Amino acid sequence: MREPDMFEVFHRSSDSRARTGRIQTRHGSFDTPVFMPVGTLGSVKAVAPNELEDMGVDILLANTYHLYLRPGHEVIRELGGLHRFMGWNRSILTDSGGFQVYSLATLRTITEDGVVFRSHIDGSEHFIGPETAMEIQAALGSDIVMAFDECVPYPADHDCVASSLRLTTLWARRCRERGTGKGQALFGIVQGGMFPDLRRASVEALLEMDFDGYALGGLSVGENRQTRERVVAETVPLLPEDRPVYLMGVGTPEDIVEAVRLGVDMFDCVMPTRNARNGCLFTSKGRLTIKNARYIRDERPLEEGCTCPTCTRFSRAYLRHLFLSREILAYRLNTIHNLYYYARLMEDIRTAIRDDTLDAFRDRFYAMRQVQDSGTG
Amino acid sequence: MREPDMFEVFHRSSDSRARTGRIQTRHGSFDTPVFMPVGTLGSVKAVAPNELEDMGVDILLANTYHLYLRPGHEVIRELGGLHRFMGWNRSILTDSGGFQVYSLATLRTITEDGVVFRSHIDGSEHFIGPETAMEIQAALGSDIVMAFDECVPYPADHDCVASSLRLTTLWARRCRERGTGKGQALFGIVQGGMFPDLRRASVEALLEMDFDGYALGGLSVGENRQTRERVVAETVPLLPEDRPVYLMGVGTPEDIVEAVRLGVDMFDCVMPTRNARNGCLFTSKGRLTIKNARYIRDERPLEEGCTCPTCTRFSRAYLRHLFLSREILAYRLNTIHNLYYYARLMEDIRTAIRDDTLDAFRDRFYAMRQVQDSGTG
Repeated sequence: MREPDMFEVFHRSSDSRARTGRIQTRHGSFDTPVFMPVGTLGSVKAVAPNELEDMGVDILLANTYHLYLRPGHEVIRELGGLHRFMGWNRSILTDSGGFQVYSLATLRTITEDGVVFRSHIDGSEHFIGPETAMEIQAALGSDIVMAFDECVPYPADHDCVASSLRLTTLWARRCRERGTGKGQALFGIVQGGMFPDLRRASVEALLEMDFDGYALGGLSVGENRQTRERVVAETVPLLPEDRPVYLMGVGTPEDIVEAVRLGVDMFDCVMPTRNARNGCLFTSKGRLTIKNARYIRDERPLEEGCTCPTCTRFSRAYLRHLFLSREILAYRLNTIHNLYYYARLMEDIRTAIRDDTLDAFRDRFYAMRQVQDSGTG
Repeated sequence: MREPDMFEVFHRSSDSRARTGRIQTRHGSFDTPVFMPVGTLGSVKAVAPNELEDMGVDILLANTYHLYLRPGHEVIRELGGLHRFMGWNRSILTDSGGFQVYSLATLRTITEDGVVFRSHIDGSEHFIGPETAMEIQAALGSDIVMAFDECVPYPADHDCVASSLRLTTLWARRCRERGTGKGQALFGIVQGGMFPDLRRASVEALLEMDFDGYALGGLSVGENRQTRERVVAETVPLLPEDRPVYLMGVGTPEDIVEAVRLGVDMFDCVMPTRNARNGCLFTSKGRLTIKNARYIRDERPLEEGCTCPTCTRFSRAYLRHLFLSREILAYRLNTIHNLYYYARLMEDIRTAIRDDTLDAFRDRFYAMRQVQDSGTG
């Protein structure tokens, strides 16, 4: 059942579709546009829940597919749900498992019932369909659950995408009919590839089912940025203004700034966390590759003025040393910085929308960026 | 030069050589008996300095050999010393590099000058002798520096150990002559293998040189516990009562409880940190192997009543899941718990010495221990 008034819009930008708002769940509320760090296996890799709290993270994403395989949703249910299991008392959104089934699992057989696949861990055979996806997410007890969808490869022709969309729509209806666990909000996922008519058809079908929010799926799958932004720009205006819009798996800071202007309220991406573990750090001047020899004696923080726990205590020289030595602390300190960067970016974006200065913010955002490692850093 | 009054003894146990005291360095003071976590490369693996502070760690050990190779002591000197480099403002003890040269490096050539060896990282050739060891440690700026010694393999015959001891004694004298950096305390290392006459000869030679403290080296190298305790019991009484006694590389909780009774003031060991990363957790009831299937639905903390950040927020079930999934957070949460366990053990030991109840503490300590994983844990 749809949670009434889970989403409240505060302010609409005068010169774009950007808006600020607040989403309420059983585990508190958070302001939008929001970025959700990814906690695949019930842990945002390399950081602890208290660190996420300290940086103002109010919602994170967990992966249904991964938690279904390890430790198993029944175990998590018995232990009181994912929040309790992972020691996180704020909001959680779970994906439906669909994307991972297609991107990680092997030997998939797809029927109208769902997908039979083999685990990427041990090759064991499993089945997830729309009802299963809802059941697993109910066991996890996340606050926002996603409908089970099919993800088509990119590029794919119109017939192929249309046929996949038929399945996604069918499954969305079955998710809606199956219903969520108590107090969970359910988002539908718009598919349709890069084809405007299919995206429109997908939206129309989903709107009939009346979801609590709408996600744009099937993007960030290899298409170029212009194509993605076109699809977002064409699709968002078709969605109801009183429901949150979630762009799945996006993206870079640039992607987010652009998508916010197109009316997107929610984002998730492994980029800040995965890049951190690869030694790629975000700053307002661009990206910094910490292993670069130029940082060997660099006493400065990753970014001057950054108030994150990494920048207030550690130098680039130390972070470089930790990273090259593969010290576990490197992954954590880098992750903390990148997540702070994203959290601050979203905060700045929200402020700019509220102040109706988003265009000026965007100009400044691009003006400051340079290639950190070849510049003066 | 010896720092006058760096060590103050507060209380001596009435029924053993155990004692409490306090050691003062340029970076604060700490109570003894003390356990020093090992921060090999300028990071106690998997934890951050603020976490060490929170658990009451006042001194840690860093490895000269490792920091000499990466990032290099000159880099650390230029960056203001190891404390500043690693963001740690409490005390640091550095070893001399000797033990690692023998245990990690390859193709060693030992002369009276020192040791030529190949790096375990890239095979590059290096030299460390007593003067170099002092110079590197001065560059690191640690609070307590160790004399450069030779470590003999175990077992080794009397002639072999005697010949090695000649070198250790010669090098200790050259370390003393070379002198430390400003404000650093210098500890001599007693060698002599398992031979009482050689240990005695080593002590006598070192006492002439008047070190700020004395370490027992060449133990925990494969000898059994009885042998080690015999050597400690025979050697400690030969040392001056007004200087700290440091048993290098020891040990298990049991080892520490016994060695404290023999008069040891300082310990270091990779055991709590390394075991943590291998999923072996210390509790007052014994060790717990977190991957054990019996913990899959275990909602209890690692140890009931433990006030560490791990036990106050996370269940055994979650820690098992993180460990089996190789999540980075597993290493950190496990390490925090084990270091808390050691910190609390040392605190309990100090309290028992002060209260003259060490024997009762020891009885209780052994009575509580059982094989956690085969018991009711």
